[in-house]
Amino acid sequence: MAVEVINFKDKLTLFGEQWSPKIIAQLNDYHFKLAKIQGEFVWHSHPETDEVFIVVEGAFEMQLTDGGLHLKAGEMCVIPKGVEHRPVAAEECAILLVEPAGTVNTGDAQSDLTAPHDDWI
Amino acid sequence: MAVEVINFKDKLTLFGEQWSPKIIAQLNDYHFKLAKIQGEFVWHSHPETDEVFIVVEGAFEMQLTDGGLHLKAGEMCVIPKGVEHRPVAAEECAILLVEPAGTVNTGDAQSDLTAPHDDWI
Repeated sequence: MAVEVINFKDKLTLFGEQWSPKIIAQLNDYHFKLAKIQGEFVWHSHPETDEVFIVVEGAFEMQLTDGGLHLKAGEMCVIPKGVEHRPVAAEECAILLVEPAGTVNTGDAQSDLTAPHDDWI
Repeated sequence: MAVEVINFKDKLTLFGEQWSPKIIAQLNDYHFKLAKIQGEFVWHSHPETDEVFIVVEGAFEMQLTDGGLHLKAGEMCVIPKGVEHRPVAAEECAILLVEPAGTVNTGDAQSDLTAPHDDWI
């Protein structure tokens, strides 16, 4: 496998859909996925895995059942497995997700926002 | 486990050593580690795992046996397991490493640059 430079801004020009994570890299059996988010996502959790959110551009709120966290570019958080959460972004925000390959964006929730989990760009 | 905001710039103020990765987050059995690098590292590989490098501040060259890649802030690369590599930075650069917990910075190389692999900040 050739080693290549992956530029986040360049990759972000390749898609427009919101709430539809795009895989940009694989580390063993983990995927790195860029997503554009705006508005309110659905409350959900991932019973099988932790999930990392890194803000690449903009800012968003990670709502938790006991409050919320405000994250901006240059910040990250880890949502432990089983913890209910809902990302909400007043303006469009670009995030980098790190999670096991096959992780579904809406986790255990039934939602129209469920997106493919194997969409490479 | 409480969910918290992890700010890269704030974390970078907490240490000064170069080539000594500091763990800032855990995702399942993976660690996210900040490191400050400058100068030439040692040639090495990790026979057991891929390794992700994300540039947080500055720029560096990832030397490979068949050439090299130039990476700057906002860019990342994946070094596949077993691939010989050597990071080199003309000026101090801050990187975020993602790799399995317990991964040693110098991999399979004998080197004075081997650092602890369990150093949280």
